[in-house]
Amino acid sequence: MVAVGVDLGGTKIMAVLFEDGCVVDQAKKSTPRVGTPDDVLDAVASVVRKVDPDGRAERIGIGVPGPVRPGTGVLPVARNLPGWDHDVDVAAGLSRRCGDRRVVVDNDVNVGTLAEVRLGAGVGCDNVLGVFMGTGVGAGLVLDGVLRQGPRGLAGEIGHTYVSFRDRSGGDVGRGELEDYAGRRMMELRARARHEAGEPTVLVDLVGDRRMKSSTWAEALAAGDDVACSIIDDATDAMAAAIAGAIALVDLELIVLGGGMAERLGDDFRLALEQRIVDRAFAEGFAPVRPAALGDVGGAIGAALRATETAVEGGAP
Amino acid sequence: MVAVGVDLGGTKIMAVLFEDGCVVDQAKKSTPRVGTPDDVLDAVASVVRKVDPDGRAERIGIGVPGPVRPGTGVLPVARNLPGWDHDVDVAAGLSRRCGDRRVVVDNDVNVGTLAEVRLGAGVGCDNVLGVFMGTGVGAGLVLDGVLRQGPRGLAGEIGHTYVSFRDRSGGDVGRGELEDYAGRRMMELRARARHEAGEPTVLVDLVGDRRMKSSTWAEALAAGDDVACSIIDDATDAMAAAIAGAIALVDLELIVLGGGMAERLGDDFRLALEQRIVDRAFAEGFAPVRPAALGDVGGAIGAALRATETAVEGGAP
Repeated sequence: MVAVGVDLGGTKIMAVLFEDGCVVDQAKKSTPRVGTPDDVLDAVASVVRKVDPDGRAERIGIGVPGPVRPGTGVLPVARNLPGWDHDVDVAAGLSRRCGDRRVVVDNDVNVGTLAEVRLGAGVGCDNVLGVFMGTGVGAGLVLDGVLRQGPRGLAGEIGHTYVSFRDRSGGDVGRGELEDYAGRRMMELRARARHEAGEPTVLVDLVGDRRMKSSTWAEALAAGDDVACSIIDDATDAMAAAIAGAIALVDLELIVLGGGMAERLGDDFRLALEQRIVDRAFAEGFAPVRPAALGDVGGAIGAALRATETAVEGGAP
Repeated sequence: MVAVGVDLGGTKIMAVLFEDGCVVDQAKKSTPRVGTPDDVLDAVASVVRKVDPDGRAERIGIGVPGPVRPGTGVLPVARNLPGWDHDVDVAAGLSRRCGDRRVVVDNDVNVGTLAEVRLGAGVGCDNVLGVFMGTGVGAGLVLDGVLRQGPRGLAGEIGHTYVSFRDRSGGDVGRGELEDYAGRRMMELRARARHEAGEPTVLVDLVGDRRMKSSTWAEALAAGDDVACSIIDDATDAMAAAIAGAIALVDLELIVLGGGMAERLGDDFRLALEQRIVDRAFAEGFAPVRPAALGDVGGAIGAALRATETAVEGGAP
């Protein structure tokens, strides 16, 4: 089957044309910063046409930045997309724009994990957690070879698991969820708070008032910056606790680690994380941490796989 | 089908004769305190004969206090059973003692959860976490209607999930796992440490050097004892964090709460726990907490269900 896979992110839309298990073409475009969900879907449709001008794909899969209501193609909310504060039927809207072809919608980290399990770092493993570190921390869960959606489409929200139940300070540094320690947005808030409290850090020297990117953190870490090292040390511990807990709760064979932040922090970070999971493992409940292998295009590949593998929700019959 | 279900615990062995979805007879016996796994299996076989003297059951299911190696009937280790420090093939050993009938072995909280989902508090729900509070904290996980084993049989070990990643003090009060706050054994260690540090508590007045039982905690709580209230408050918070995290990670519809400690602490505890899960829930990711409905006999019923429902591992062909 020929399928188009789309990864709809807050900054860019990436698409692949996927045929017989291979990427035969790709295309991308910036995501509209302003406007409405209709504008976003127009942009997605234009990328679909760009990667598949002859309309060869039978189905279109799309990974979206938020939990999708199961059994539908509806994305109720997406903080990173303009005007997306209400239910939008992505499947129907995109199908209408693409010659009434079938459209399958799923969460972006879900399809990213599916791609790694089928064609990337997780090949050969049936019980895999794909963890993606970026602005926040998200995950996808493949159990007994099947991507888990959950009854409300929430499965994999590891960023919202609790790793520090007494830390309920609220406010800037969260309430003890993994994302409060290991998500880039909260890590920046922690760094700026420490800077304002009088601790010097190259993190602020590097960016001033601009946003700290993954590369900023990697640079500060390489320079041995105390604040960066300590915040990343906490992030590593929090990740190890959450992942060791996930292994104990659902029993996993493999952790695939991806996302911009993990990529930039590289093998040193990954190996430190793996060691701390060993330290915390229950019984034989250890699982190795492998780097995601499909990079930037994994999400789009996963969306194509999701469209070809599964029964179809929404779109044309 | 007629089946015998056995719940093999550290203090007692409970068995039911299960026919057409009903318990038609039950029997119990104390678990041997000393001896070898063979002595334990002899005792189990005698309870099976007691509940089913005519050998009507086609299959025997047994829930055991430890993780079972998947695809086998082997229990590698059981701290609460005498001499059980090595691999023991429970399926083969019990089958041999019971006229070569088929024997299915699973973890005790797994089968307890299965029973609650099929016949107890979880009827009608397909995605359920059964949490059992006693000496430790264990859980079983039913996902999309299927009891999850996990590739190493470790699924459901919520007691070993991390709720306080910075608490790595080790020693008496653990290293930040749920069980370190909400398991009766560790709660007692905390209480005794505070008592020795000069805080008076009726917990110690009630039992002296004897073990604090669930009823001891319930009594101290009813008396408004400061130490007991504060430790149970922490236990509630830690349970809420672990359960809210489990809901976020796997997406669950319902929590079934059981075990001696939860039973004794009663509805006040359960409702406080439920409220704190609401406080910590991600998105719509809340799940109500219902009390286990099958009580003491749930494990044995679940073992019978497990034997009738599933393909058979071990035992006679």
